[in-house]
Amino acid sequence: MSELVTAAMIVIGDEILSGRTKDKNIGHLADMLTAVGIDLKEVRIVPDEEDEIVAAVNALRARYTYLFTTGGIGPTHDDITADSISKAFGLVCDYDAKAYAMMEKHYEARGMEFTQARKRMARMPVGATHIDNPISLAPGFKIGNVHVMAGVPSIFQAMLDNVLPTLKTGARMLSATVHCPLGEGTIGGPLGEIQKAHPDTIIGSYPKYAEGSFYTELVVRARDAELLETVRAEVAAMVERLITEAA
Amino acid sequence: MSELVTAAMIVIGDEILSGRTKDKNIGHLADMLTAVGIDLKEVRIVPDEEDEIVAAVNALRARYTYLFTTGGIGPTHDDITADSISKAFGLVCDYDAKAYAMMEKHYEARGMEFTQARKRMARMPVGATHIDNPISLAPGFKIGNVHVMAGVPSIFQAMLDNVLPTLKTGARMLSATVHCPLGEGTIGGPLGEIQKAHPDTIIGSYPKYAEGSFYTELVVRARDAELLETVRAEVAAMVERLITEAA
Repeated sequence: MSELVTAAMIVIGDEILSGRTKDKNIGHLADMLTAVGIDLKEVRIVPDEEDEIVAAVNALRARYTYLFTTGGIGPTHDDITADSISKAFGLVCDYDAKAYAMMEKHYEARGMEFTQARKRMARMPVGATHIDNPISLAPGFKIGNVHVMAGVPSIFQAMLDNVLPTLKTGARMLSATVHCPLGEGTIGGPLGEIQKAHPDTIIGSYPKYAEGSFYTELVVRARDAELLETVRAEVAAMVERLITEAA
Repeated sequence: MSELVTAAMIVIGDEILSGRTKDKNIGHLADMLTAVGIDLKEVRIVPDEEDEIVAAVNALRARYTYLFTTGGIGPTHDDITADSISKAFGLVCDYDAKAYAMMEKHYEARGMEFTQARKRMARMPVGATHIDNPISLAPGFKIGNVHVMAGVPSIFQAMLDNVLPTLKTGARMLSATVHCPLGEGTIGGPLGEIQKAHPDTIIGSYPKYAEGSFYTELVVRARDAELLETVRAEVAAMVERLITEAA
């Protein structure tokens, strides 16, 4: 059986906490990690404050196989992610020679000044490796098990596409959904019994509300296809039985 | 000057971490708290695991004026929020007499069985007070500074509408936006100088990318209207100057 591979995410930015910007990266990362068999176990959204970022990075990088961050790697004064990650690792944050040269050339070719602000984007912890940014050039970086990426969704997604093939992946969690026209209050008891009988599966129950009434999506998750089918069939039979009883 | 009022949020649910459900509650809570002058300082998304929920609740309720949770208060086996909150407070989790009676009557009036699963929704820490649920009856609850609400967005929003008038609110953070057609690389340096000169404001710079080029939204935040206008004017003048220089 494959090893369990886990991950956490830190979303960095006052603009998410104020509601001004609505995060679009959590759901995308969750989808992509689930697809390759990595379990996202925790997400934290923290403000643009160094102590908060350092504390979250050190708490999460120690607990999970991978940590992903988004936000705070632009050229302005409120972009403090590179400094904060460096501090979390006890490393110096400095201009990365390769990133600096690449960006200098890029701006020169466009007749644009390579300002102090733009130079900030070439800073990273000493020893970090690049995460390519095909959209706006300034790279993200990887240090230890931490992947530092942009907050702008299109850039984050492009960076993540570059990162995913480099990750160790786990046995993919498979899932099967059983639609249930009954509310959770009706199915909760018997569903709990099925969960208890199959501890190697995760059975989720998601209430939905539409047109004035509740229905439920029952999702069985397991890493083993045969087990998944066995439990899915039990859940489907339970729903059929309860529908008959309710009729 | 008004007191600073802070808050944190915990989103509870495997379905958010797997990507199956995309959270809609974080942005809503952020908007509502900002509107009444409460600073949302941290959000955590945690799985349906008691130890994780207890640890997050105890870490955050101690640090902030208020803590809000969403998710995990339904009738099925994976709804463990009431038990976890009780454990975090060292309180017994039991049927609440008022909630039990109200729900019993509700189901009886509809000719529906008050199942064991439905009864689970009447459980809360001893001493908790109700948060009314005008949509599907089963209440959320408040214990200490922790407000426990539903994960289904329509129910969460209705519960929050009941909670907001009960909260101590702070001086509202005001904001003013300056549109900037230049990228962050051009404005980063001078903008940082303005921020340094006005430590009682928060100046955010949000890169946007549309139709192949970057522009920037510069947002000044302050609790004092006069200060806000002073700094907004400085930022606007800076943008004008840089546009002229670039032309």
